[in-house]
Amino acid sequence: MNINTHLATMPAGYLFAEVAKRVKAYQAENPQSSLLRLGIGDVTRPLCRAAVDAMKKAADEMGTFEGFHGYGPDFGYDFLIDAIIAGDYTARGIDIGRDEVFISDGAKTDVGNLQELFAADARIAVTDPVYPVYVDSNAMAGRLGTYQGGKWSNLIYLPTNAENGFVPPLPREKADVIYLCYPNNPTGTVLTKDQLKVFVDYALANDSLIIFDAAYKAFITDDSIPRSIYEVPGARQCAIECCSFSKTAGFTGTRCAYTVIPRDLAFSGGNFNKMWGRRQATKMNGVSYPVQRAAAAVYSPEGQEQIMESIRYYHENARVIREGLQKAGVGVYGGVHSPYVWMKTPGDMKSWDFFDLLLRKANVVGTPGEGFGPCGEGYFRLTAFNTLENTRAAVERVVKVL
Amino acid sequence: MNINTHLATMPAGYLFAEVAKRVKAYQAENPQSSLLRLGIGDVTRPLCRAAVDAMKKAADEMGTFEGFHGYGPDFGYDFLIDAIIAGDYTARGIDIGRDEVFISDGAKTDVGNLQELFAADARIAVTDPVYPVYVDSNAMAGRLGTYQGGKWSNLIYLPTNAENGFVPPLPREKADVIYLCYPNNPTGTVLTKDQLKVFVDYALANDSLIIFDAAYKAFITDDSIPRSIYEVPGARQCAIECCSFSKTAGFTGTRCAYTVIPRDLAFSGGNFNKMWGRRQATKMNGVSYPVQRAAAAVYSPEGQEQIMESIRYYHENARVIREGLQKAGVGVYGGVHSPYVWMKTPGDMKSWDFFDLLLRKANVVGTPGEGFGPCGEGYFRLTAFNTLENTRAAVERVVKVL
Repeated sequence: MNINTHLATMPAGYLFAEVAKRVKAYQAENPQSSLLRLGIGDVTRPLCRAAVDAMKKAADEMGTFEGFHGYGPDFGYDFLIDAIIAGDYTARGIDIGRDEVFISDGAKTDVGNLQELFAADARIAVTDPVYPVYVDSNAMAGRLGTYQGGKWSNLIYLPTNAENGFVPPLPREKADVIYLCYPNNPTGTVLTKDQLKVFVDYALANDSLIIFDAAYKAFITDDSIPRSIYEVPGARQCAIECCSFSKTAGFTGTRCAYTVIPRDLAFSGGNFNKMWGRRQATKMNGVSYPVQRAAAAVYSPEGQEQIMESIRYYHENARVIREGLQKAGVGVYGGVHSPYVWMKTPGDMKSWDFFDLLLRKANVVGTPGEGFGPCGEGYFRLTAFNTLENTRAAVERVVKVL
Repeated sequence: MNINTHLATMPAGYLFAEVAKRVKAYQAENPQSSLLRLGIGDVTRPLCRAAVDAMKKAADEMGTFEGFHGYGPDFGYDFLIDAIIAGDYTARGIDIGRDEVFISDGAKTDVGNLQELFAADARIAVTDPVYPVYVDSNAMAGRLGTYQGGKWSNLIYLPTNAENGFVPPLPREKADVIYLCYPNNPTGTVLTKDQLKVFVDYALANDSLIIFDAAYKAFITDDSIPRSIYEVPGARQCAIECCSFSKTAGFTGTRCAYTVIPRDLAFSGGNFNKMWGRRQATKMNGVSYPVQRAAAAVYSPEGQEQIMESIRYYHENARVIREGLQKAGVGVYGGVHSPYVWMKTPGDMKSWDFFDLLLRKANVVGTPGEGFGPCGEGYFRLTAFNTLENTRAAVERVVKVL
């Protein structure tokens, strides 16, 4: 039988698998070393009380005849959809309908599956460096050509770096789909509304789709920075938005997210809201009821207060990293509206070499920029997801080996 | 931009959407009617105590620094994988390794996504009638040709009906992939080990893959009926098995499942275990930790006792339906090792006409066989997922209008 050769021949390994492998090897050689981890973008603070209580209450309901919930609505319960619309959209003057929100178990899932909407020959553009899922999910579907020298032959790369202030240029060749993630993973940088509008205008003029990944929007501290692409006029005609409770509310291990597809969003006569609905109704069965209750509780006044406490905590960590590195003369980006700090490696050191140096000499684990794409070479990502004490200690250790 | 026209042009509606629509319309016209629902295959009894308690305990852990769980292992926690292997395989003499089990949020999700392993030109075979997800997920990927007169031009149908005792024939043309679901949805029938071996032998001889959906295995009451395809010699070289906690343990609203892919399963040089691992690591982020704890608790002695109590309850309902209809002279199939009873419509009535008749004259909701495929025409599905009282009442009502 013929197989999906695009999937079979994918270049090995997801970035973090390689990170984990090197860390494990080092620990095996150095069992006494005490590593400080500022690598994978995973939250560390507990799930907020409101979410825990809501999940427990829902679990209890599930144990009764009256409160039992079997299959839920394919696209999520109205109690959660309504809470999302009120909390994340109406409150910011954006009009989103119930039929435009699709609840899922994760933004990674949605971002990975959304490419099923496109033809096999759709041209894809991503910023570089980039969250690998946008690239890999399209590569597995055969859209990206061949992989050589760290680049896909048929992928449009939009370089972002210190030189262009991490503002991606528009594609030079026509892109059918542009993936944008702001606040950005991995660089931690943001786009102003005007900068984002350049992309919306491009998409409208070129019949292109923007997939806007807003997983980190809760970290935005400046109200003028768009938390949603729908703050930009015209975005409803060209953009899908993916959001997650993972970083907003510490749901990385609890699993809940949502994707917004405006009801009139259409390309080549295909209504993307309806197509996605058909896809989701066919290939998934909704999200766990207790998990949806936990997610809805995040929007309660207590929930909001509790999640903001954690976000402030991570912000403080990011500040410690940013300012500590700046003081040491390092080029530092992001880390203001984001839990991610993106730094230049010293002396243009290769990012995997710097990874090994930090691991061995500072016992600090970060993420090499090259793992996020060719333009990540020479950069390195540190995350604010640790304790304040560990973050301070890690920065001291890093600065010493620079 | 070019879109996925296969998805955009999918024939409308998932079967149950149409059922829901007709029920809603009837209720709007007849607000006093009291409907008895034996339609959708959704459990109705509470989640077992062991699972509820485990979920609550895990939720509490998530609320603490020490017990918090962020991203879990992509393919599931060992505590759950080990429980599955011990409870569902080792106990039955089947050797399955940790690296062969992939935890997910649902068998529907896995069954829908597994086709990503195949080339666009892989030839697919399904039994007819069939669970629609096998068909629709392949249709969306463009493998099935065109849809006309209720049939896909490039799909191999293996008819099962009263005439062949619901034992599907082997494909007459070469099938690359054969989807088998036993105990069967919708017919409720089973295959003996020898009957299943015919398919394993075919797959081995023809380099074909079997996707074996064992979602209903907990309903098997006769130990000679295979609960796993791996009870058949040679199946490790040709079969993937999908299992679910939905029907086994009432997890339809809680969401947990697993798929087994033997580590050496390979086609055209592609190792399916590794390819699936790459797919899953790229496009999902694991299953909710409290949900995995709940699933693991199902394997505890208390959990096993509690879920068996519900399964016995559903078995009794199935018996009531089966015997009630048999007594009325109806041709009845399934319902012994399954919560589903598959009946002939009276006088070869079209199944949607019989649906309307039952809805209007008996106020009973079932599922028309035609919705599961061309060979479902003339049959009708009733499910055991209601209270015993309602089941008795429904059978009485059905018998009256025959």
